[in-house]
Amino acid sequence: MGTSAIDTTKPYVMGIDIGGTNTVFGLVDARGTVLGTGSIKTQKHSNFQDYVDELYEKASILIKDHDAEGKIHGIGIGAPNGNYYTGMIETQVNLPWKAPIPLTKLISEKFGIPAAVTNDANAAAIGEMTYGVARGMKDFIMITLGTGVGSGVVVNGTMVYGADGMAGELGHITVRRNGRTCGCGRHGCLETYCSATGVAKTAREFLEARKDEPSLLRDMQVEDITSKDVYDAAIAGDKLAKDVYDFTGKVLGEALADFAAFTSPEAFVIFGGLAKSGDLLMKPLREAFEADCMPMHKGKIKILLSELKESDAAVLGASALGWEAKEPVETAK
Amino acid sequence: MGTSAIDTTKPYVMGIDIGGTNTVFGLVDARGTVLGTGSIKTQKHSNFQDYVDELYEKASILIKDHDAEGKIHGIGIGAPNGNYYTGMIETQVNLPWKAPIPLTKLISEKFGIPAAVTNDANAAAIGEMTYGVARGMKDFIMITLGTGVGSGVVVNGTMVYGADGMAGELGHITVRRNGRTCGCGRHGCLETYCSATGVAKTAREFLEARKDEPSLLRDMQVEDITSKDVYDAAIAGDKLAKDVYDFTGKVLGEALADFAAFTSPEAFVIFGGLAKSGDLLMKPLREAFEADCMPMHKGKIKILLSELKESDAAVLGASALGWEAKEPVETAK
Repeated sequence: MGTSAIDTTKPYVMGIDIGGTNTVFGLVDARGTVLGTGSIKTQKHSNFQDYVDELYEKASILIKDHDAEGKIHGIGIGAPNGNYYTGMIETQVNLPWKAPIPLTKLISEKFGIPAAVTNDANAAAIGEMTYGVARGMKDFIMITLGTGVGSGVVVNGTMVYGADGMAGELGHITVRRNGRTCGCGRHGCLETYCSATGVAKTAREFLEARKDEPSLLRDMQVEDITSKDVYDAAIAGDKLAKDVYDFTGKVLGEALADFAAFTSPEAFVIFGGLAKSGDLLMKPLREAFEADCMPMHKGKIKILLSELKESDAAVLGASALGWEAKEPVETAK
Repeated sequence: MGTSAIDTTKPYVMGIDIGGTNTVFGLVDARGTVLGTGSIKTQKHSNFQDYVDELYEKASILIKDHDAEGKIHGIGIGAPNGNYYTGMIETQVNLPWKAPIPLTKLISEKFGIPAAVTNDANAAAIGEMTYGVARGMKDFIMITLGTGVGSGVVVNGTMVYGADGMAGELGHITVRRNGRTCGCGRHGCLETYCSATGVAKTAREFLEARKDEPSLLRDMQVEDITSKDVYDAAIAGDKLAKDVYDFTGKVLGEALADFAAFTSPEAFVIFGGLAKSGDLLMKPLREAFEADCMPMHKGKIKILLSELKESDAAVLGASALGWEAKEPVETAK
């Protein structure tokens, strides 16, 4: 992990963040400076090898521009359902290629550089531990609040991958027994309440349940309401919108109190779109955590916001995994 | 961990299990054979050093009888709230000495042997990994069902102690929001439903809620009902008592489905009094787990019963920690 793996002749890593729309790649040094980035459209090629070929072509320009040929220690990849152990995406996700997708094999062969993959939230946790607010921490939990809720669990300085490489799915832990239906097939998952989608759903439920209460959110089509709309309304002083954030923070704070009983972390690190809501979310979240956590945890566990710039975070997180990449590879063809 | 630490001149470990009533100690070899045990009354000495002195006196006889002087690699101690990092019991528990209790310091000084401590459930997990059904597993979760519910989480072959040494309190994870009041101060904790105490409480609630339904349990004073009574009634075919076990198994199975989303273990290992209820508990437990777990876990995670003999398990578990004990110690006085 981290800088211990660096040899001075290979001072760089490459991070690749595979998103549903764009794939962003970046060249990163040992201090976490992003020297340069580029991107390609994830959906452009229905054949995975064609995608890898274009990725290699574009990334090679970046590598050449920075005189980094032969100086890259490893490639780290963040991808939905990326499995660290197998180097593949094993179950079908919202990407144009059929699972299983042999990510690290084809990418490391093409680049002639060792590669490793994990899911986006784990990559974010490794990024936070290597370059961010969790530097020096051995036990922390990363929570990413986006369209869904992701997580990365670090124990004793090591990422928890579990028996199958798929550990750390805290977005799918039950927070309300028999609660909202989740895309994963379970009910009452954290993700159904504390994601951007969950916030919008809570707003719709509150509008329906409190029909006589005025709200700025009544000016729009109820099915079009987004978490951004709820945020804007709350900032404008709307009571109902603020209550949505209070509820969201409470649900998340109580969930973190449960998670604390699991691994007793030094800190939680919160990242992602909703985290930018600031005190609107963090105040009820911290209050609910302190009110609900086990007595031995009260006042002892930090709830921090990520310090990584959001524009760089995905690539940085993925790149940090590049320091760990070490499987033998063939030379690039 | 395990036999790698054994040097041939010191082929034994000593396990000490500090319970509220009795302290049991045993001499154990590398194969997990308990060569001999002894015990003293935990409550006899109000002064902790006096207790250690008696423990040393009694254990010395056992050591001498087995010609084991100078051949003990380490002492492992299982104790309520025992903190692996500090070697102490830091918060007051049901023992006659005032916390913090410097367990490993005084015991290792007295015996002239390195000592390590953890809580009972973690010791059970280490015992299971070293000598039991979890041999060879790198990722599993031990659940101990006794008066309370304890747990030990193993990730990547290593016990999870967390930032403060107190990780793995799965008995205090919320299974029913705003549910039963727990001794820990929280509400709806797993322990309030799936411990022996929880089973008795569920029986009382069912008797109250189903007033018109006959049950063998109505023959006794409702406040005197124990989990053993519920077990006996269920075995005798009592419908209400069987429903109590179905409910208990369901709550535990759904909790394990949540825990699986955390660390993706290869297996859960169930230990303790309630585990002896056999299919009465295990059948609804396994059914609820499979019905509720994430799709990627279905059919993939084993739910096993401990293979350690209950009479030996506490001492064996504690002793396994003795292989890891390595702090520098002074010679015995």
